Amino acid sequence: MSGTKKGLIMALDLIEREKALDIAGNVADYIDFIKVNYPLVLSSGIGVIGELAEIKPVIADFKIADIPYTSTLIAKIAFENGAFAVICHGFAGSDTLKAVLDVAEEYGGEVYVVTELSSPGGREFLQRHADSIAMLARDIGCHGIIAPATRPERIKDLRKIAGDMKILSPGVGVQGGDVVTTLEAGADYIIVGRTIYASEDPVFQAKKLREEIDVFLVDR
Amino acid sequence: MSGTKKGLIMALDLIEREKALDIAGNVADYIDFIKVNYPLVLSSGIGVIGELAEIKPVIADFKIADIPYTSTLIAKIAFENGAFAVICHGFAGSDTLKAVLDVAEEYGGEVYVVTELSSPGGREFLQRHADSIAMLARDIGCHGIIAPATRPERIKDLRKIAGDMKILSPGVGVQGGDVVTTLEAGADYIIVGRTIYASEDPVFQAKKLREEIDVFLVDR
Repeated sequence: MSGTKKGLIMALDLIEREKALDIAGNVADYIDFIKVNYPLVLSSGIGVIGELAEIKPVIADFKIADIPYTSTLIAKIAFENGAFAVICHGFAGSDTLKAVLDVAEEYGGEVYVVTELSSPGGREFLQRHADSIAMLARDIGCHGIIAPATRPERIKDLRKIAGDMKILSPGVGVQGGDVVTTLEAGADYIIVGRTIYASEDPVFQAKKLREEIDVFLVDR
Repeated sequence: MSGTKKGLIMALDLIEREKALDIAGNVADYIDFIKVNYPLVLSSGIGVIGELAEIKPVIADFKIADIPYTSTLIAKIAFENGAFAVICHGFAGSDTLKAVLDVAEEYGGEVYVVTELSSPGGREFLQRHADSIAMLARDIGCHGIIAPATRPERIKDLRKIAGDMKILSPGVGVQGGDVVTTLEAGADYIIVGRTIYASEDPVFQAKKLREEIDVFLVDR
């Protein structure tokens, strides 16, 4: 899928279920996936994943980073409740990653692995291991990695390692990354949150981002 | 608190609310804290934290490892719902840790920081940073660190760094660690899960662990 498909993932980092469902429904035409995180799921209940999955496939961004036993339980709950994919931290170790991948495969789901966080602190411990984590993710058969749109030079490096894995890049918009630079660097999907859901006009913002992606694809 | 108080934390890694409340109530006399993880909270709803908090103070072992913005939302939800402390990954970076600590302080709560996971994969990326993470946790004012009972030599090293911070050690029981070795190495609290809750007789097991801790304290 790398290099051919480019798409838009909405990070639905809200805590109100109604608002989340409302925005997701409104922007559905312009997005490929919905990414949910713990704040929404903890506030609204795990059932919100299934409700959102009726709109678009849901990525449960649970940044799983526990011992294998607990990590498999978390992944299982996500998939049982309708998630299409889960996000896992590679730094927890290969045993955790493999355990989560085993669960995903039972459900025909996917696993995406965090390389380095897009926040400044992502440079402190994670960055130096990002390449090793990406290799590990690739070698054990994960489906994608998460790489920061705030650091396009890192996406380029990680693209060389990623092989057939998808690269999903958060940090476009409020955090400073932009669509074209991120896609050019080698990302397959851009992940956009606040720029869409915190906007006065989420539909306009989602449509605009989708158009930027489409223009990028035509220009190539 | 280090070196004086020694105690028992029950890791309530179950997914059924009724069973969790039942076991917690039964072993209340022998434990100091209840540690909950995502599997229970996702299955039972966030309200289970408040229900358990009526029995013993609850540590929300959410292993927070996200960008600061998302991490604060997760911490806020935990404290709003009655948690006494949250567990955070230092690996995510100092900005995440500080952001979570700020939230904890608003609620008069505590933050415990994972140094290395007790699972084999904890050696791969985490272990070489465990000392730095412990120093970071201490320097910014966190209340404790998590160090593996499966590696008592590591608890000894981390005790030298920890200063006044508490050391909480999982991995006693099923994972191989034992009470006396763990306490001798410098842990303040041992965290025990399956040995209690998956036992035929959780009360007997909790009482036995409490007695081992008491004997250790008398023998010193």
